[in-house]
Amino acid sequence: MREFPPVTSRRNPIVQQFRRARDGADPAHFVVEGVRFIEEAAAARAEMDVVLVSEELANSDRVKPIIEKLQQLGTDVRHAAEPVLDAVSFTETSQGISALARRTSVELKTLFNISNPFIIVAAGISDPGNLGTLLRTANAAGATGFIALKDSVSPWNDKALRASAGSIFHIPIAANVKFTDMAALARQSRARLVATSAVRGEVYYQFNMKPPIVLILGNEGFGISEEVRLASNAFVKIPLAQGVESLNVAAAGAILCFETARQSGIVK
Amino acid sequence: MREFPPVTSRRNPIVQQFRRARDGADPAHFVVEGVRFIEEAAAARAEMDVVLVSEELANSDRVKPIIEKLQQLGTDVRHAAEPVLDAVSFTETSQGISALARRTSVELKTLFNISNPFIIVAAGISDPGNLGTLLRTANAAGATGFIALKDSVSPWNDKALRASAGSIFHIPIAANVKFTDMAALARQSRARLVATSAVRGEVYYQFNMKPPIVLILGNEGFGISEEVRLASNAFVKIPLAQGVESLNVAAAGAILCFETARQSGIVK
Repeated sequence: MREFPPVTSRRNPIVQQFRRARDGADPAHFVVEGVRFIEEAAAARAEMDVVLVSEELANSDRVKPIIEKLQQLGTDVRHAAEPVLDAVSFTETSQGISALARRTSVELKTLFNISNPFIIVAAGISDPGNLGTLLRTANAAGATGFIALKDSVSPWNDKALRASAGSIFHIPIAANVKFTDMAALARQSRARLVATSAVRGEVYYQFNMKPPIVLILGNEGFGISEEVRLASNAFVKIPLAQGVESLNVAAAGAILCFETARQSGIVK
Repeated sequence: MREFPPVTSRRNPIVQQFRRARDGADPAHFVVEGVRFIEEAAAARAEMDVVLVSEELANSDRVKPIIEKLQQLGTDVRHAAEPVLDAVSFTETSQGISALARRTSVELKTLFNISNPFIIVAAGISDPGNLGTLLRTANAAGATGFIALKDSVSPWNDKALRASAGSIFHIPIAANVKFTDMAALARQSRARLVATSAVRGEVYYQFNMKPPIVLILGNEGFGISEEVRLASNAFVKIPLAQGVESLNVAAAGAILCFETARQSGIVK
């Protein structure tokens, strides 16, 4: 095992780097906190540039092998004092280990540079739990990409990360995207823009949901915007029992993502 | 409009009744708090025995018609002082209106006393948001009943209530149920016990999901218990993309509930 150059002061530039990433101010990184989440990240071969860990935790049976593996992959692992760990934590008291991980964000156009894009678009999703769950579901259904438009919560929001249950490390994501940019690329690559709607459109299982498809899910309360409505090529609806107005957006997304998977046999 | 007999003291027996219901100690009632949630409850024709409301809110344009409607339906509406409202609130500061509503809980056997039961079972779901979302989805898919086993969180938990988005008022629910009691009734009524599993069983869309069916969803981390596994008639799985271990339980429930709806044409 290599040496662990210690980080003892909160004024260390590494601490500033962690804090910027934690607060969403670093477009290239995010912070992964806690043993369990770092285990998931390591299992998913997520790129982690720096890990800060308490000396005690670093020597524990559970964490030691994770750290050795990360060091082999080139991660800069450092012992950190408690105040340093607290300073980079999402909560008041740190869980003893935090990593500066690379975002899996990609340029928007790379999502469309494949033969059969199957892309899920969060168009105004405001609850991070819903966004993270949708990301997890999209990944599980074999989606090739995920887009969070400007008016959606960030996929790297702490709560979204937790709801994504590791999927954040697997699916290519473009975030902070302008709808018109996305729509233009979809048109160029001849992927249909299919928006979900509580009121209009074809019943989802009677509609061709096979890729290439860009599936758009709207805001929890208001659905899709006028802009999205006007630019969409088709609308699908999920028929609901009498008297029921709507589904949770992550539940609706699950039904539709897996209808694409069912129709196309993407996952078996 | 009728008179509002005021509740001025926290020692009023009505306050104790609200607090017992709020804390889950009253098997027949629960507390609905806030204008929006009470609007939903009223729209769903939920039975509300007593409403406590601040005089100011009672006279507002939004709340006045709701209160008049509730009074017509026999609800005992009372003006309450601020400390009284705070004392019955889920949070430190009340939202100005709270209702003592009747639980829609039913005896377990009534759920099976119909020709084609389509019942969703929470078998160890621990997150109230997941349970509430599942309840909402089950209702939207046309399920005829919902069962929360003893090891699941209560459907009348405040967070579950909010995630249910009013569905709590529509679907018959049996809570705190022993698995063996439920399994015995299912056998008697010849409804198949179909458990979901990440690893075993038939692909859900190649399986007959039509009612009569009792669809069992397990714990977020551990899935279904040994007891449930041994008593189940069949297992269904949702095929997932390579490297993905599992779905969020409410997402899995949505896919399966709506597969039943799709196969049987329950909702159109």
